[in-house]
Amino acid sequence: MSTVAVACCQLAPHVGESQANRADAEAAIAAAAADGAQIVVLPELATSGYVFADRDEAWALAEDLDGPTVRAWTALAAQHDLVIAGGLCERGSIARRPHNSAVVIDASGVRGVYRKVHLWDRETEIFAPGDAPPLVLDTAHGRLGVMVCYDVEFPEWPRLAALAGAELLCLPTNWPREARPEGERPAEVVRVQAAASSNRMFIAACDRAGHERGTDWVNGTVIVGPDGYPLASPECRDEPLTLQAACDLSLAQDKRVSDRNSALADRRPELYGRLTS
Amino acid sequence: MSTVAVACCQLAPHVGESQANRADAEAAIAAAAADGAQIVVLPELATSGYVFADRDEAWALAEDLDGPTVRAWTALAAQHDLVIAGGLCERGSIARRPHNSAVVIDASGVRGVYRKVHLWDRETEIFAPGDAPPLVLDTAHGRLGVMVCYDVEFPEWPRLAALAGAELLCLPTNWPREARPEGERPAEVVRVQAAASSNRMFIAACDRAGHERGTDWVNGTVIVGPDGYPLASPECRDEPLTLQAACDLSLAQDKRVSDRNSALADRRPELYGRLTS
Repeated sequence: MSTVAVACCQLAPHVGESQANRADAEAAIAAAAADGAQIVVLPELATSGYVFADRDEAWALAEDLDGPTVRAWTALAAQHDLVIAGGLCERGSIARRPHNSAVVIDASGVRGVYRKVHLWDRETEIFAPGDAPPLVLDTAHGRLGVMVCYDVEFPEWPRLAALAGAELLCLPTNWPREARPEGERPAEVVRVQAAASSNRMFIAACDRAGHERGTDWVNGTVIVGPDGYPLASPECRDEPLTLQAACDLSLAQDKRVSDRNSALADRRPELYGRLTS
Repeated sequence: MSTVAVACCQLAPHVGESQANRADAEAAIAAAAADGAQIVVLPELATSGYVFADRDEAWALAEDLDGPTVRAWTALAAQHDLVIAGGLCERGSIARRPHNSAVVIDASGVRGVYRKVHLWDRETEIFAPGDAPPLVLDTAHGRLGVMVCYDVEFPEWPRLAALAGAELLCLPTNWPREARPEGERPAEVVRVQAAASSNRMFIAACDRAGHERGTDWVNGTVIVGPDGYPLASPECRDEPLTLQAACDLSLAQDKRVSDRNSALADRRPELYGRLTS
């Protein structure tokens, strides 16, 4: 039995208020830990905010991998034996072009960094895209996959994480809100559900809240099991909140979908050639 | 403006009653045409039934591509200017191993045949699997893609149909019913919604009804738009019924998801290599 307590802390950061954003994140992480969380997932760009005026502003708000956000999350991970996966505006090696990154942190510090590959809208003018597959790594609390927001809309990407053995896909996200039909669950959440069941893995998608420079958000934070149904349902409330679910990650190692079928072994990769051309 | 009227006729066939099953299908097609349908989608194995005792029974119930089902559907297509996509137990060239096929038929007869590639459960003992990509072909009423049931659970497969230009994916299906949490839409329907929005194409999934040798069905027939929301919502009622929706298929040619983003052009195929190995 490998059940772990997974928490998603939906935050409401504001561009230009990094210190307050960091304090909010730290408080949410500490509260989740007090409620028993072992894995904590945070939104995309959790401490910088999202709606940058331009690339220069993003660069000014970007942090190094030994900056104050990473130091604070490492201290909390050590204090509470946590694994934290959260979004960071990362100051990399390309001048004035930060990365839209997600870091995985435990008591030892940064265990891995993922740089968003599929960039959304104005991000293409601000960030340097990543060029590596989804991050998949073993932690004390399970084998995690990591990608960011729009990445998951490409079904190829969660599939690659599953093929690399991810049991829990951590998805820091900032989903801009769009109109949807009355009574319908947001398409963003629906895609996460489908990615979970198609790949028989858990997904913890952590969205954000708070009006920022004209943009509102889906507030669609959700934790989904490998059968595609929410373990913690999206509340779509525009406020900071934490969802938590007990996840038996060993279930994600079992890819059977019937007595004779497997979500991965039944693939016909010899017929999928056009996907890579 | 290229709006077409798409109908899905959820039927309730019974194994061994092919003549009655064909009559039911013909009546449903004629009624849909009378209501203005131009494209009619039928379930998987629409006239043979699904729960075969063994391979011999399936072979005995299989039909050639000039058999009574194809002849009847061709006559109806000619009479009402329809395109029909429906499932057929096809007697192919391999002795005693039929194919779980879907045929696309218009007034000229069989326009294309797709043989199910990803076989579900006992189908592996009964059918010879196909070895070709999703069928995608131009018809008088739009560019259609075709696959069958379990195929769509492999996100690679609807993606291949979209890359080949399918505007409307026709999905004959027989979804066995499984328990689901109260209030949740079936995972089968959720995956169809996600495949539609990830690929910005329409999907018409036609499920079946009727208790057959111990098996019940999701009854999840649904028509979804390229935004991933149902145009005709699943009723999950265990009875024959027809859903119909007006679909402007030109919308599926527009893959934009923001001012700067495209569901297909933003793919990073150079990073997807592991999908084909």
